[in-house]
Amino acid sequence: MTLAAEIRQGDRRALARGLTLVENGDPAAAALLADVGTASRAHRIGITGPPGAGKSTLVSALTALWRGDDRSVGVLAVDPSSPFTGGALLGDRVRMLTHSGDEGVFIRSLASRGALGGLSAAIYDAADLLDAAGFDPVLVETVGVGQGEVEICRVADTTVVVLAPGAGDVVQGMKAGLVEAADVLVVNQADREGADALVAALRSAAELRDAPAPPILETTATTGAGVDELRQLLDARVGDAEGESLRARRLERAHARLRAAVDRARAHRYWAAREDALARAAEAVAAGDTTPAAAVRDLLEGDA
Amino acid sequence: MTLAAEIRQGDRRALARGLTLVENGDPAAAALLADVGTASRAHRIGITGPPGAGKSTLVSALTALWRGDDRSVGVLAVDPSSPFTGGALLGDRVRMLTHSGDEGVFIRSLASRGALGGLSAAIYDAADLLDAAGFDPVLVETVGVGQGEVEICRVADTTVVVLAPGAGDVVQGMKAGLVEAADVLVVNQADREGADALVAALRSAAELRDAPAPPILETTATTGAGVDELRQLLDARVGDAEGESLRARRLERAHARLRAAVDRARAHRYWAAREDALARAAEAVAAGDTTPAAAVRDLLEGDA
Repeated sequence: MTLAAEIRQGDRRALARGLTLVENGDPAAAALLADVGTASRAHRIGITGPPGAGKSTLVSALTALWRGDDRSVGVLAVDPSSPFTGGALLGDRVRMLTHSGDEGVFIRSLASRGALGGLSAAIYDAADLLDAAGFDPVLVETVGVGQGEVEICRVADTTVVVLAPGAGDVVQGMKAGLVEAADVLVVNQADREGADALVAALRSAAELRDAPAPPILETTATTGAGVDELRQLLDARVGDAEGESLRARRLERAHARLRAAVDRARAHRYWAAREDALARAAEAVAAGDTTPAAAVRDLLEGDA
Repeated sequence: MTLAAEIRQGDRRALARGLTLVENGDPAAAALLADVGTASRAHRIGITGPPGAGKSTLVSALTALWRGDDRSVGVLAVDPSSPFTGGALLGDRVRMLTHSGDEGVFIRSLASRGALGGLSAAIYDAADLLDAAGFDPVLVETVGVGQGEVEICRVADTTVVVLAPGAGDVVQGMKAGLVEAADVLVVNQADREGADALVAALRSAAELRDAPAPPILETTATTGAGVDELRQLLDARVGDAEGESLRARRLERAHARLRAAVDRARAHRYWAAREDALARAAEAVAAGDTTPAAAVRDLLEGDA
């Protein structure tokens, strides 16, 4: 049986092998993805927010609820904020050990090996494999803060931004960007002081954005309070009522994904034959012998 | 007189107009940059680190010292963490008002209008204009935390990472990536409790990286303690002793810049004629009628 067929049958070891191909950018990954076939069946949910907001605990609590419905849950844990270390932070992964041994849960950390574009592509592809193996929903949880997370959540059908009271100035500084990216805002650790103030602040911030204001939910992932409401809200987005916005999002996602993949392939081909010319041009620019603009013009010469 | 000539003569209003062209991605910006001529004269120093570390105060203190040497200082304040709001956070800019009215200081905030690649390109170009107008050094200060900052600091000749004791878990989480990116590590607010422990932690972390460990300096920007040592260390990097590593960095920077500019230009041309095909392919993928891999193959058809 082919690896693709094994993955479609839900073979966990085959899935793990396929994910490694994708993560390493192995040439065999492209053929595997073509073999695995069309996807976009599973609800892909991005979970992001600053460290300490309780994302992992929330993911664990949501997973338990979906398992109660006998749904298989895939989790991709992504760390875009450490592009140099070559290994995703596994810190809170241990909490998910409550689900270890459960065949209906598959958890994988994706390291950020290369540029942001490369990681986005790997997440798309990894989510396709989890999808093909029958996991639905597929959660993409990010570790850290910054633009990377916001971009990566764009691969998701639905982006959940998790904040907690008292996380301080980082949250304040990030708020504008995160609120813009959110389909659902969650104030976790809602039993802590400052939760109501944070909800009020988010409500004000949400009113400023161009898109309709997202729902704001309060949860306490450690006790499970509010988590079922969140699960229901997420599931409802796949149903008829919200299906339209989900379809629009998937179309947008496919558009960005195809464009980026074509751009990468074209750049790869183009530079394969021009590495020397690029190196010479870079030397001339660094030495001040030519301007960047003139060098770019030369490097584009003869390109259709 | 052309805008380029006015900028080369140090005309501040012309410079501001040029920077607006660059920031808006105006088609006239490319011609302006070609007219302005070769650059890479000024020492471009990236200053990054988590919010609250005192970057702005440090930039202000360094600027005062360079002004004492009668050097003109350009400052680009960049906020990559709010890609959606279309306006850079101006929060601490007010501190720089001590330098307002000083013709030897030029401060500009750059908003992140589009993708990260677009902002990097705008920073390169904006630094070229400040350089052409006679500012040296040109400081690129980032606001916020995350991978964006690390990438943006790669446009710099020298990257200074500023940390402060007690900034908590964010600093801990980011440390690995930031330490890797640093040419110089600064522990600011060194008069605070925990400064020695932070220096020790950074020293351990720095030993783990592939490149030689960076120098670690302690400063208290509010009193000026240690700032002159930092200034001297930065200036020494341009001199003979460290000139070699700076040349290598500039070559690397020119390489990345040219490649990205050519890729952007080629993608722009390619999609101008294929927007409809891309839209149809995205619809087919979103509907599950084809795989992303097959759609990419079709979109690449006929490309040399």
